[in-house]
Amino acid sequence: MSHRPTFRYYTATTLDGFLADDQDNLDWLLSQPIDEQGAMNYTDFIGGIGALVMGATTYEWVVEHELAQGNPWPYDIPCLVFTHRDLTPAAPTVSIVAGEVTDHLDRITALAGDKAVWVVGGGGLAAQFAQAGLLDEVTVSIAPVTLGSGRPLFPQPFDLELVEVAQNRAFVCARYRVVGPRT
Amino acid sequence: MSHRPTFRYYTATTLDGFLADDQDNLDWLLSQPIDEQGAMNYTDFIGGIGALVMGATTYEWVVEHELAQGNPWPYDIPCLVFTHRDLTPAAPTVSIVAGEVTDHLDRITALAGDKAVWVVGGGGLAAQFAQAGLLDEVTVSIAPVTLGSGRPLFPQPFDLELVEVAQNRAFVCARYRVVGPRT
Repeated sequence: MSHRPTFRYYTATTLDGFLADDQDNLDWLLSQPIDEQGAMNYTDFIGGIGALVMGATTYEWVVEHELAQGNPWPYDIPCLVFTHRDLTPAAPTVSIVAGEVTDHLDRITALAGDKAVWVVGGGGLAAQFAQAGLLDEVTVSIAPVTLGSGRPLFPQPFDLELVEVAQNRAFVCARYRVVGPRT
Repeated sequence: MSHRPTFRYYTATTLDGFLADDQDNLDWLLSQPIDEQGAMNYTDFIGGIGALVMGATTYEWVVEHELAQGNPWPYDIPCLVFTHRDLTPAAPTVSIVAGEVTDHLDRITALAGDKAVWVVGGGGLAAQFAQAGLLDEVTVSIAPVTLGSGRPLFPQPFDLELVEVAQNRAFVCARYRVVGPRT
C-alpha cells in the first residue's frame, strides 16, 4: 500500500467566499498589496510541493493570462488538469486527465514523491478531492473585498479546524486542517 | 446637520461567506468554542452600541429561537426591524419599519445617542446600508466551516480595508473599514 501524499488547497479568496467573479476576473485580487516574504507566502509554500492538480477553468485562466501574453507556463512542477473537455497541454509538465480524482491517485502519488500536492483550484475540484478523503489542508489568503457572486471557494459542507492565523498586508491568512464532511 | 452615528456590521460567518444555511440553521456556529472575553468579543462590542437594525429573517430567527422557548427578547437596546411584512414587535424596544434605510436615519441617529449602530444582519440589509453610505465597519468571526450554500454574508461588491486580525479559539476574527462599492 503506497503512502499517499498530503493534499493542500492553497488559494486566495474574497471575504464572501469567491475565487473569482462571474467573468473569472481577478482584478480584485491582483490589486492588493502582499509581502512576498510574509505570512503563508507562496515561495515557502511552493517549495514543499511535488505535484499540482487543477480544474479546467483554472487551467484556462493561466493559459489566457500567461501564455497568451507571451509568458511561459509558470510551473516546473508536474501538473494534472482534470477536465472532460479536449484541452491541449500547454507544456511538457502538463497532463490532461478525465475521470474521478481517485482514478489518478497512484499517478499523483508517484509525481509528488516525498512532497505534497497543491490543489490549485477551483473550488469544485477541491471539494471533489475532499469528498474522496484526499484533502488535508485548506490555506486561504482572504482579500479585503466582497464580490456578491462569482466562483465559489468550496461548494460543499465541510468541517475544518483552525491551525494558524496571520495577517499579510491586506490579507487575512488562515490555515485549516480538513476534519471531514458535515453530517 | 445632525452627526450620523457609526454603523457596524458585526456577525459570524462561515469561511465560504454564509451567515446561515438554506434553512436558516446556525448549528454550525453554535457548536464552536469561543472565548467570551477574547478577541472582538460580544460583551466589549455591545457596550458601544446604542441602537440595533436588523432584517426580518434575522428578527424571526431570534423570535423563533429565543421567545418561542420562553426566553425574553435578548436586547435592551432599541431595535428597528426593516421589513415590508406585517410583523408584531416582540418587545417594547422593537419597532417594525418599512421603506429605505435612509428614510429612518434621523430616528436611528436619535436612538443611538453617542453610541454606534449595530447592523445585526442579514447580509442584504448590511448591503443596503453600505449602498446608502451608512456602513463604516465590518467585523466578522469566521467559523471553521464551509456550507456550500446558504444566506450570503454581503451580496454586493465592496472594497474593504483590513484594520485588525485575531484568533478567538475556533474563529478567525477580522475587522474592516468599509471603503466603498467596487467600481
